[in-house]
Amino acid sequence: MSHSDNNRLRSIWQAGGTVFNSMLKIPSAFAAEIMANQGWDSLTIDLQHGPVSDRDVFGMLQAIFTTSTVPLVRIPWNEPSIIMRMLDAGCYGVIGPMINTRAEAEAFVGACRYPPEGYRSYGPYRTGLEAGPDYSDRGSDTPIAIAMIETAAALHNLDAILSVPGLDAIFIGPNDLARSLKAQQHGGSSELDVTDAIDEIIAAAQRHDIVAGIYTPTPEDAVRMMEQGCQFIALSADAYLLASAAGQVLKRVRANTG
Amino acid sequence: MSHSDNNRLRSIWQAGGTVFNSMLKIPSAFAAEIMANQGWDSLTIDLQHGPVSDRDVFGMLQAIFTTSTVPLVRIPWNEPSIIMRMLDAGCYGVIGPMINTRAEAEAFVGACRYPPEGYRSYGPYRTGLEAGPDYSDRGSDTPIAIAMIETAAALHNLDAILSVPGLDAIFIGPNDLARSLKAQQHGGSSELDVTDAIDEIIAAAQRHDIVAGIYTPTPEDAVRMMEQGCQFIALSADAYLLASAAGQVLKRVRANTG
Amino acid sequence: MSHSDNNRLRSIWQAGGTVFNSMLKIPSAFAAEIMANQGWDSLTIDLQHGPVSDRDVFGMLQAIFTTSTVPLVRIPWNEPSIIMRMLDAGCYGVIGPMINTRAEAEAFVGACRYPPEGYRSYGPYRTGLEAGPDYSDRGSDTPIAIAMIETAAALHNLDAILSVPGLDAIFIGPNDLARSLKAQQHGGSSELDVTDAIDEIIAAAQRHDIVAGIYTPTPEDAVRMMEQGCQFIALSADAYLLASAAGQVLKRVRANTG
Amino acid sequence: MSHSDNNRLRSIWQAGGTVFNSMLKIPSAFAAEIMANQGWDSLTIDLQHGPVSDRDVFGMLQAIFTTSTVPLVRIPWNEPSIIMRMLDAGCYGVIGPMINTRAEAEAFVGACRYPPEGYRSYGPYRTGLEAGPDYSDRGSDTPIAIAMIETAAALHNLDAILSVPGLDAIFIGPNDLARSLKAQQHGGSSELDVTDAIDEIIAAAQRHDIVAGIYTPTPEDAVRMMEQGCQFIALSADAYLLASAAGQVLKRVRANTG
Amino acid sequence: MSHSDNNRLRSIWQAGGTVFNSMLKIPSAFAAEIMANQGWDSLTIDLQHGPVSDRDVFGMLQAIFTTSTVPLVRIPWNEPSIIMRMLDAGCYGVIGPMINTRAEAEAFVGACRYPPEGYRSYGPYRTGLEAGPDYSDRGSDTPIAIAMIETAAALHNLDAILSVPGLDAIFIGPNDLARSLKAQQHGGSSELDVTDAIDEIIAAAQRHDIVAGIYTPTPEDAVRMMEQGCQFIALSADAYLLASAAGQVLKRVRANTG
Amino acid sequence: MSHSDNNRLRSIWQAGGTVFNSMLKIPSAFAAEIMANQGWDSLTIDLQHGPVSDRDVFGMLQAIFTTSTVPLVRIPWNEPSIIMRMLDAGCYGVIGPMINTRAEAEAFVGACRYPPEGYRSYGPYRTGLEAGPDYSDRGSDTPIAIAMIETAAALHNLDAILSVPGLDAIFIGPNDLARSLKAQQHGGSSELDVTDAIDEIIAAAQRHDIVAGIYTPTPEDAVRMMEQGCQFIALSADAYLLASAAGQVLKRVRANTG
Repeated sequence: MSHSDNNRLRSIWQAGGTVFNSMLKIPSAFAAEIMANQGWDSLTIDLQHGPVSDRDVFGMLQAIFTTSTVPLVRIPWNEPSIIMRMLDAGCYGVIGPMINTRAEAEAFVGACRYPPEGYRSYGPYRTGLEAGPDYSDRGSDTPIAIAMIETAAALHNLDAILSVPGLDAIFIGPNDLARSLKAQQHGGSSELDVTDAIDEIIAAAQRHDIVAGIYTPTPEDAVRMMEQGCQFIALSADAYLLASAAGQVLKRVRANTG
Repeated sequence: MSHSDNNRLRSIWQAGGTVFNSMLKIPSAFAAEIMANQGWDSLTIDLQHGPVSDRDVFGMLQAIFTTSTVPLVRIPWNEPSIIMRMLDAGCYGVIGPMINTRAEAEAFVGACRYPPEGYRSYGPYRTGLEAGPDYSDRGSDTPIAIAMIETAAALHNLDAILSVPGLDAIFIGPNDLARSLKAQQHGGSSELDVTDAIDEIIAAAQRHDIVAGIYTPTPEDAVRMMEQGCQFIALSADAYLLASAAGQVLKRVRANTG
Repeated sequence: MSHSDNNRLRSIWQAGGTVFNSMLKIPSAFAAEIMANQGWDSLTIDLQHGPVSDRDVFGMLQAIFTTSTVPLVRIPWNEPSIIMRMLDAGCYGVIGPMINTRAEAEAFVGACRYPPEGYRSYGPYRTGLEAGPDYSDRGSDTPIAIAMIETAAALHNLDAILSVPGLDAIFIGPNDLARSLKAQQHGGSSELDVTDAIDEIIAAAQRHDIVAGIYTPTPEDAVRMMEQGCQFIALSADAYLLASAAGQVLKRVRANTG
Repeated sequence: MSHSDNNRLRSIWQAGGTVFNSMLKIPSAFAAEIMANQGWDSLTIDLQHGPVSDRDVFGMLQAIFTTSTVPLVRIPWNEPSIIMRMLDAGCYGVIGPMINTRAEAEAFVGACRYPPEGYRSYGPYRTGLEAGPDYSDRGSDTPIAIAMIETAAALHNLDAILSVPGLDAIFIGPNDLARSLKAQQHGGSSELDVTDAIDEIIAAAQRHDIVAGIYTPTPEDAVRMMEQGCQFIALSADAYLLASAAGQVLKRVRANTG
Repeated sequence: MSHSDNNRLRSIWQAGGTVFNSMLKIPSAFAAEIMANQGWDSLTIDLQHGPVSDRDVFGMLQAIFTTSTVPLVRIPWNEPSIIMRMLDAGCYGVIGPMINTRAEAEAFVGACRYPPEGYRSYGPYRTGLEAGPDYSDRGSDTPIAIAMIETAAALHNLDAILSVPGLDAIFIGPNDLARSLKAQQHGGSSELDVTDAIDEIIAAAQRHDIVAGIYTPTPEDAVRMMEQGCQFIALSADAYLLASAAGQVLKRVRANTG
Repeated sequence: MSHSDNNRLRSIWQAGGTVFNSMLKIPSAFAAEIMANQGWDSLTIDLQHGPVSDRDVFGMLQAIFTTSTVPLVRIPWNEPSIIMRMLDAGCYGVIGPMINTRAEAEAFVGACRYPPEGYRSYGPYRTGLEAGPDYSDRGSDTPIAIAMIETAAALHNLDAILSVPGLDAIFIGPNDLARSLKAQQHGGSSELDVTDAIDEIIAAAQRHDIVAGIYTPTPEDAVRMMEQGCQFIALSADAYLLASAAGQVLKRVRANTG
């Protein structure tokens, strides 16, 4: 069974490579098109932490489909409704936030798969348009299911989560993970540092033959995490890149104005 | 007569300073808010060369009004309809493209002014909301009228254009100006180089006591043009800043992936 | 020839009655539907002084078409492009601002009429949907053409404007008229007061057998102008009604909070 | 620990005052800006009973942020997904409908709080823009959590709900409460009248040192409920104020047309 | 008790007739208006398998309300939040997907009914606009609740689902049902064919005096299923009709171009 | 000079072939994508006779760019503002309505061309994204300029219009042409029938080596006009195809319901 022809990310991973991805938080098909023309392997439309709404996704997908960049989506919460809508719209994979237990991971992966592997409802109205007439046959196992590991609870249930059939990758949310661990430390129930936790998660993913991914704010962090074994790097976001670039050019001109 | 209390740009100019501005080409109130929080003196919503439409302006203005940045607009063509709509919506100034003759300059400035100075129709439905109850009395001469000088024809009519009462500033479009001059050279009717033309325009503006402005793609260009006497610098645009920033971070991570 | 079967406003006018209308400045099909359920004879979507854009009109029209209220539109400027688009969309009449000369009035009315009376292009894609299969035959002379008289120039050309064939009504803009007259007085070329001017315009309209209309901010003004002969009363606008109602209820509760 | 510097509502409550709020049901940033300029302490964007969708909230928030009015949101149902999205977007508080049990109240408050108090995911992309760089440190306990008490079941579990740590206020929905009690009376299991129930809820809230709030259709009701101890008054809504104001002015002119 | 005056579909069913319905997958109020003018008894706005979002529904409803066609909605998942929002917006009925157990059916129907029959929250802001002042009294039992039967699990629980009080109709999803049965056959736990399953479902619905409905791609399928007892036929969708019609005319011209 | 690499329509015409095109009147990027996947050579976004607004074009273009279909636009009126905006957005050609004189044709073509051929302002923000880095060099003469011939006046000025340098094609509007001729006949100044006029226009276009195009409602008309020499056939529109297809299937099921 080969997915490499219909999902470029799996091909990269199977060849041992790293997927470079950025997050889309600006609800604009023009901004998405600009980003999609910069050479990212994939772009993740962020429905969780950004003003992008369900309504904006379709146009942003069309923008991305004018290029060869692979579109993913991060859903706001682990719910079948939004997962199935996003897959029908043409997203090639889903990042599910706050997956803390095996049951949550099963529910998440199941919503991404048609029976018998899962319980996704059939009706890929749009993907069919651009993926060809044989899409429906291949569609069941195509979407990439990526679970976010970002709480002390998820860390506790790591092996149970990682052994859920059909899970393609995990994605570490360093901010939430650090806050969750700190909260737990405050309660005295753990001493684990976020850096150690990240190492542990990557090692566990590799043990289970699952791709490890992480969010990184800078290229330097990205390179470091890639060297530590992450094959899915979410590097910054359109909103942050824009803010930073504007701030920098303005700083440079102001520096010359005495 | 002092406008400084209701339009910060005139205050900066009267104090001999330079206004740093960028162009907004992404039709998104979130992108506009990001830009407005970076410290620009003003931002110009670009209805000419970008996918921003009339419909998007109102929300982008609200985004800018959450900060102290001054909102301007570049209209797609010198027409009273769009000028008056944009002023009613709350824009503090208008950049009019392709102003090539004195008559065009008069029509442009007149659309920005209530009688007797001009022929703007009264109905500033929104500006009143945030500019206070005395807005309507001050409103007539408040908006900044900026004419683009970007053709060989405009160069030919420069003094006639610059002497139109009420014109606050001119804005040089280097790309169109270069193309127009080159086209004319092709015809043998002129030998003027775009760099010389820009010098000539700035000098003429200063002679007429009118602010000179120009578009510059980089901070280095911005500083150079400021030193040549431009007090209104339009430095890049959200779309270009985003593309460039994304391209750069991706290049840096790819460079490390051997 | 009778229009009364397809345009209720003409029926009211022919029976000597007065049309009560309000302005829609909130770009929302829900707000439009609320207004359309209050019993107005007509509602005018205001593209001139409000944030409503061309894009918003279609939905607002559908909202109004769920009731028997007659939809009109005020265009931002006297241009064939927007007039024809609005008529195709299903507006039953057009208010053209700043009609100052006979030529402008002819251009305005001509854009509302198919040949031979005018030069409107044929393609009423939507009106046909709800107006029945015989719409295209009746369509040529159906739309109500209403010219705004709101400048000293228009006053000067009043008879020439009023004698343009096909003009149904004039609409007085008291704010712009007052400003225009004041500006002219300033120049010493006229002494006419806005109140006298309004009387003169109404009398002239009646003389030419054309309906006279005016904007009024309050019900009291509306009744007064109706008594003076205006058969088309534009009474306030959704935006002003909302602001006023909210301000009043809040004032009443604050008054009780000592 | 004081929240008064970053949330004006808590300051008013701590000083023993009453917060006057209205509901926003019109999905328009212009209507929201009009309302926000009338002097309300807070405005609640209503995602439950109105056509406002998730997509409309961001622009309405920007409109409100041009003033000092505090933006709240009423979510359609007690779900973490929408709560976290609304808080990230910049809402200063959340009204959760149909909170009937302690478990529901805990889930509701937990979604509004970062660990260790709750389980909110970190990513306040926008609030940071206008609330300053220290927002993230203060953000965890800032949002106001308001639970709706509007069923017989909630009344039954009142003390359990009111003792959930972190709950700021309760909000009585008189319409649903009356229907729920009437349905129960029909079943013979209770005789409680809605007026008595409201008294009981207010008393219980005060006993638990939690702010009591209620919806009131008129200023007179508002004053009465304030006198009974409610410190959060939701007085009417934009949609109702507009309908009522339009109906009234039209009635006044029609009354004069014999 | 008679519903026939306020819901035309119940009248058709009570008279033994069949309701012809199509699905709306194009998120456009213009496309909806075109469809609503073709004579369908009802149209179902499809929030499950199509790019229509919550935000688009309101405008599509207004489009449908300009005709006598009855608007229904298919929700993306069985959740009270979206059910109640859609009913408040004015949908006359709801199709709930993947109703597999009696508990799910009860939750579904309960969200469509006010107490004591269900737990719907009161606030029909818009329906009231067009359904008259007595809407709120009749509203409780008006909406049509249609449960989708489309899995092996639902088939197993058929009688339990069909006996839930207040359920008006069931709607067979042949695609999902076939896939679910095939998946089960693959596991060896059943041998039921989808055609037999459909017969069984229709028979069971008739036994419980509940309307049976089904999706059919072509008019021929529609007629056949009507003859088998289905009184609710969902025949194709706007998106498929458009694709097919365009493909056919193009094929005909290409056939003549040698 | 060869355009064939960057504009497929010119290649078809140079090879003596016919371009099959349809009109897009539904303002939806999903409907546009459906149409673009049916195999049309080009699709024309219709800003003249349809509810599509300037704001909708960008998304519809992205939808079309996911396929190899060539996007054109019909502007509402011959104005440089909208022509330049549409070309910057990525339209590969423009259809200008009501081109009646040589001066109008020159203004139309000039707005489509950079100096020295025309007066288009430079800033193709989006086309550059998908057309490669050399777009700006080729861009000046790329867009296809198509003038509508649809009035008696245009017929009178036919040779003058057809000899304007840079005009690629003419497009006959049979409806408007018939009405204009009929209006003129009514005045007694001409006896020309619309069928004869169409023959005359096609012959004149061929004489001037300019492509002749026409709108046709049915495939039969399309084939006939192709045989008469039209190389650009606009065959129906999404809105008409949808209405017709829905009406037909419904008619077929109703016919079977006795």
